[in-house]
Amino acid sequence: MLTVGIDIGGTKIAGGVVDASGGLIDPLRVPTPRDPREIEDAVVAMITDLSQRHPSVGAVGIAAAGFIDRDRSVVTYAANIAWRDEPLRARIEPRVGLPVVIENDANAAGWAEYRFGAGSGTRNMIMLTIGTGIGGAVITEGALYRGGHGSAGELGHMRFQRDGLQCGCGQHGCIEQYASGRALQRIAGELADAGGIGSALAAARESEGTLDGRTISGLVSAGDSGAIEALRRISSALGEACGTFQAAFDPELFVIGGGVSQLGEILLAPMREAYATAVPAHGNRPGADFAIARLVNDAGVIGVGDLAREGRH
Amino acid sequence: MLTVGIDIGGTKIAGGVVDASGGLIDPLRVPTPRDPREIEDAVVAMITDLSQRHPSVGAVGIAAAGFIDRDRSVVTYAANIAWRDEPLRARIEPRVGLPVVIENDANAAGWAEYRFGAGSGTRNMIMLTIGTGIGGAVITEGALYRGGHGSAGELGHMRFQRDGLQCGCGQHGCIEQYASGRALQRIAGELADAGGIGSALAAARESEGTLDGRTISGLVSAGDSGAIEALRRISSALGEACGTFQAAFDPELFVIGGGVSQLGEILLAPMREAYATAVPAHGNRPGADFAIARLVNDAGVIGVGDLAREGRH
Amino acid sequence: MLTVGIDIGGTKIAGGVVDASGGLIDPLRVPTPRDPREIEDAVVAMITDLSQRHPSVGAVGIAAAGFIDRDRSVVTYAANIAWRDEPLRARIEPRVGLPVVIENDANAAGWAEYRFGAGSGTRNMIMLTIGTGIGGAVITEGALYRGGHGSAGELGHMRFQRDGLQCGCGQHGCIEQYASGRALQRIAGELADAGGIGSALAAARESEGTLDGRTISGLVSAGDSGAIEALRRISSALGEACGTFQAAFDPELFVIGGGVSQLGEILLAPMREAYATAVPAHGNRPGADFAIARLVNDAGVIGVGDLAREGRH
Amino acid sequence: MLTVGIDIGGTKIAGGVVDASGGLIDPLRVPTPRDPREIEDAVVAMITDLSQRHPSVGAVGIAAAGFIDRDRSVVTYAANIAWRDEPLRARIEPRVGLPVVIENDANAAGWAEYRFGAGSGTRNMIMLTIGTGIGGAVITEGALYRGGHGSAGELGHMRFQRDGLQCGCGQHGCIEQYASGRALQRIAGELADAGGIGSALAAARESEGTLDGRTISGLVSAGDSGAIEALRRISSALGEACGTFQAAFDPELFVIGGGVSQLGEILLAPMREAYATAVPAHGNRPGADFAIARLVNDAGVIGVGDLAREGRH
Repeated sequence: MLTVGIDIGGTKIAGGVVDASGGLIDPLRVPTPRDPREIEDAVVAMITDLSQRHPSVGAVGIAAAGFIDRDRSVVTYAANIAWRDEPLRARIEPRVGLPVVIENDANAAGWAEYRFGAGSGTRNMIMLTIGTGIGGAVITEGALYRGGHGSAGELGHMRFQRDGLQCGCGQHGCIEQYASGRALQRIAGELADAGGIGSALAAARESEGTLDGRTISGLVSAGDSGAIEALRRISSALGEACGTFQAAFDPELFVIGGGVSQLGEILLAPMREAYATAVPAHGNRPGADFAIARLVNDAGVIGVGDLAREGRH
Repeated sequence: MLTVGIDIGGTKIAGGVVDASGGLIDPLRVPTPRDPREIEDAVVAMITDLSQRHPSVGAVGIAAAGFIDRDRSVVTYAANIAWRDEPLRARIEPRVGLPVVIENDANAAGWAEYRFGAGSGTRNMIMLTIGTGIGGAVITEGALYRGGHGSAGELGHMRFQRDGLQCGCGQHGCIEQYASGRALQRIAGELADAGGIGSALAAARESEGTLDGRTISGLVSAGDSGAIEALRRISSALGEACGTFQAAFDPELFVIGGGVSQLGEILLAPMREAYATAVPAHGNRPGADFAIARLVNDAGVIGVGDLAREGRH
Repeated sequence: MLTVGIDIGGTKIAGGVVDASGGLIDPLRVPTPRDPREIEDAVVAMITDLSQRHPSVGAVGIAAAGFIDRDRSVVTYAANIAWRDEPLRARIEPRVGLPVVIENDANAAGWAEYRFGAGSGTRNMIMLTIGTGIGGAVITEGALYRGGHGSAGELGHMRFQRDGLQCGCGQHGCIEQYASGRALQRIAGELADAGGIGSALAAARESEGTLDGRTISGLVSAGDSGAIEALRRISSALGEACGTFQAAFDPELFVIGGGVSQLGEILLAPMREAYATAVPAHGNRPGADFAIARLVNDAGVIGVGDLAREGRH
Repeated sequence: MLTVGIDIGGTKIAGGVVDASGGLIDPLRVPTPRDPREIEDAVVAMITDLSQRHPSVGAVGIAAAGFIDRDRSVVTYAANIAWRDEPLRARIEPRVGLPVVIENDANAAGWAEYRFGAGSGTRNMIMLTIGTGIGGAVITEGALYRGGHGSAGELGHMRFQRDGLQCGCGQHGCIEQYASGRALQRIAGELADAGGIGSALAAARESEGTLDGRTISGLVSAGDSGAIEALRRISSALGEACGTFQAAFDPELFVIGGGVSQLGEILLAPMREAYATAVPAHGNRPGADFAIARLVNDAGVIGVGDLAREGRH
């Protein structure tokens, strides 16, 4: 059986047909409409197109940023789309004539890495997707940890700093404010303001009008000490948080995904160092390894397609 | 089938026969010897005694504070006993002629509350045992979450405060330093030093030479505003941490155990309040309830006895 | 000699004639224009009016929120007005024919309390003005502490929390984010969101569309436990910060001003308690007292008028 | 007029004759006795010896770690010696027949740097002496800032981290716990435990049995990345704290003293960088420079000798 995987992002809807070994066939990508109904229509169109061309498609998985209920049926809260208690499965199943499961996008990406990517071979794994925010997924004993209401694994919103920075989730001090792409931009901006090692960052901001992740990554690769310092700060914060995740979840492996993960060892080295000094009872407990994600752009589609194959349970 | 449950604590070894409905028969309690070999002998003697008197005993569970390996066989690190990579199962099984499983004591207590106590009826539960430190146990989909190396659920050592108070585990800022019995004593001592609302605490310390948990609890029950303030601070800290645990584990219920839990609603009220203001995306996700543990003194014995019944898997 | 004092606030320009014993004659109040030039004109008009009616006026003091240079002549940076390196003295002196000194508004208010208000009789005093933000003034050995560039005593921007809440000054974790009127509103809002003890706050927000300081103060006076909890949090934070101020400045007295200070002992009690547990080497050093400001609305005008009397030095 | 300066340290009593230009004549050094009376005798002997050989000595200054009263007469609390409300001046003056002033040792060192060392030419300066702890001194408008009870300028005990590391002063989170020599040793030890870049630190600890400041400094000078990382962490913390000190005190210059200051630019560079990103309203206010102390070992003696020349006021 083949499945269709759909990943609804803030700017693009990605989709494709997923085979049993994690292969991605016919990848598609369209801009995300503003209106929730138009998003639904675009998703239905993409599923219909793919399933007509691949008649052995037998199930559909849809990934979205937000909270999905325990039955993987309703989007209780979406981060970027005006969905509140949206019965997405009930709306889409009759229009496509196939069984549908909904899953959180970070969970889908984590599942893909566990099944077919950097985490294959482990049984207990955590994936952290570093985008604008930080997405988390926890695999325990080969299963996706979903919790009592389907909203477990929100690792980006674990508290890193009591009374800390304001987060978009309404809380203060979430790790997302210290270790995400947005944090990288904020810290790079502060270094640019301060001059000194931040002067190349300041010059880039001056010439481009902004300091986006791509610019900062480019300066990192070029060896600029200000950009490297900004990266080191988010990497250290994430490694420090992983020490706490070890105490909570005891994974064998942390997989780091998202655009910034492509910097590879420049990102992982300070993370490993901070992790090693942040694990409780260090030296008296087994630790975890770190790896870079392998399925970067397609992880959501592949993961949610594979979860659809498993069926509802 | 009956089982024997043994709980090796820092000061006492407790044991008893556990039936299939969580009933505890023939509870025993002896002081914990200093020498590891004498501890082993005392455990063997207790098991032999109980199994001879109850011939239908078919398995043994032993709980201890520390890290237990994934196979529930070896104590890789014990907190209060000089065990390092101690093959406890291999040493005890031949001496008692029964299958043995080893489990972390906080996990055993959590399992007992899940099966027969405050958590019965839920599928996803967290138990926090507030003693000198804080023990944690995570139940997910009706199973004990043990992690990749058997050391998951060390919730007392999740970071609460970056660069925070020194913890005995080698880390800084563990929640245990802000919300345990030891934290209660420290805060009560600070209030006693400061005078004002701490003057009754200071008087008690003067007359008793120390400020232990029992004294502080007594002052709380008597309505002393200094003792109530000390309790409020650890309770708020724990509630705040539960907001983070919600993001990570998404339980339906938090069960609070340990001696201080007997204060009941005076403890839970500020915890609920702090939790409600600390859950990420509050209002857009389902939350958890709070309950006081029911099996306080016997939870470890009952839980590990019941886990032994399940066998090795 | 009489002087004129002018206090340029974000919404109102206040002025009046100040006598040698701190008496305020002919108080005036006009709305603050938007345009910097119109502000200057309004100030000149007010000075001219007052000095014509009181011919013995011999000097003028002008207070504004922002950084004033060491010569008390140039507004190097104003918080709410588009003044950057504005030579305010040089622009106003020729138009009014009187010597002019410029001073930071919180410094002016602190000076007034020191000379004629709650701090009279002390030699070393700190004033904290709790408005939307927090203003600070330090009096040492009977002199206003102004620092090497005129910008000392910015106590609201001392770091309270490493990696803490974002502040409008570009920093993170300033005490202003935890203990100001704005912090009171934020915390009250969080309690309102959380329900429970915040339900009266939520009802007030629902009926008035917002939760301003006046509403929260009203609920405090009415004994509402949610509003009292919000006040207790900012008061504790401020008291804790005062423990650090003690180590730095060693004042004999803290004077608390600003609108919320009118709540009196409900504000001061938790502040004193937090202070007592936050002073380093408590018990081995003399501490400071706390008092409510006496000249609330007129402190800026009276203080800057009195500073003008002292002349330039 | 010449004066005698005496600096009572935890391990050595240093003394000498100080001339009007800060020159040090006849420096002496004896071990500090354990018994307070023997300390007093040793101090009297040293003063008698020096004043007999230099008859133009007209006053004596004595520096000690602790709180000195406002009259510079009584040691209200000493950190390392069993003095509580010790009337040191009254005890020593009759025995030496010369006027005596007592001063805090960090204040004395700061005064020396202001008058004759790195701070000469400024009017507003802060000195931070990084030893086992952190001593602070504040010079404002050319005068030593002593506060209402003589205990101002305790900058090492300003709060750096709310709910932070336990400090010997009874508080939590003092900057001293993050940026002193003791902090350097703690962080180096954590890196040694963690392996990786800490392996040279671990090897040094293994071979020497401990990790003292000298060993760590040696590894820094040898370019070891673990030792440099440990130094960078305390340096960044201190620079960050200096951002807050700027808001409070507005100095023109920070002078860094103590043994570790001899590392020079390796210490100052991360400090400057952290300072630049930690000053409130950065870019809109004048900042301060950083300099290394010049009178390292003799600063206390020279400073307190010079303060004695000024007389009592």
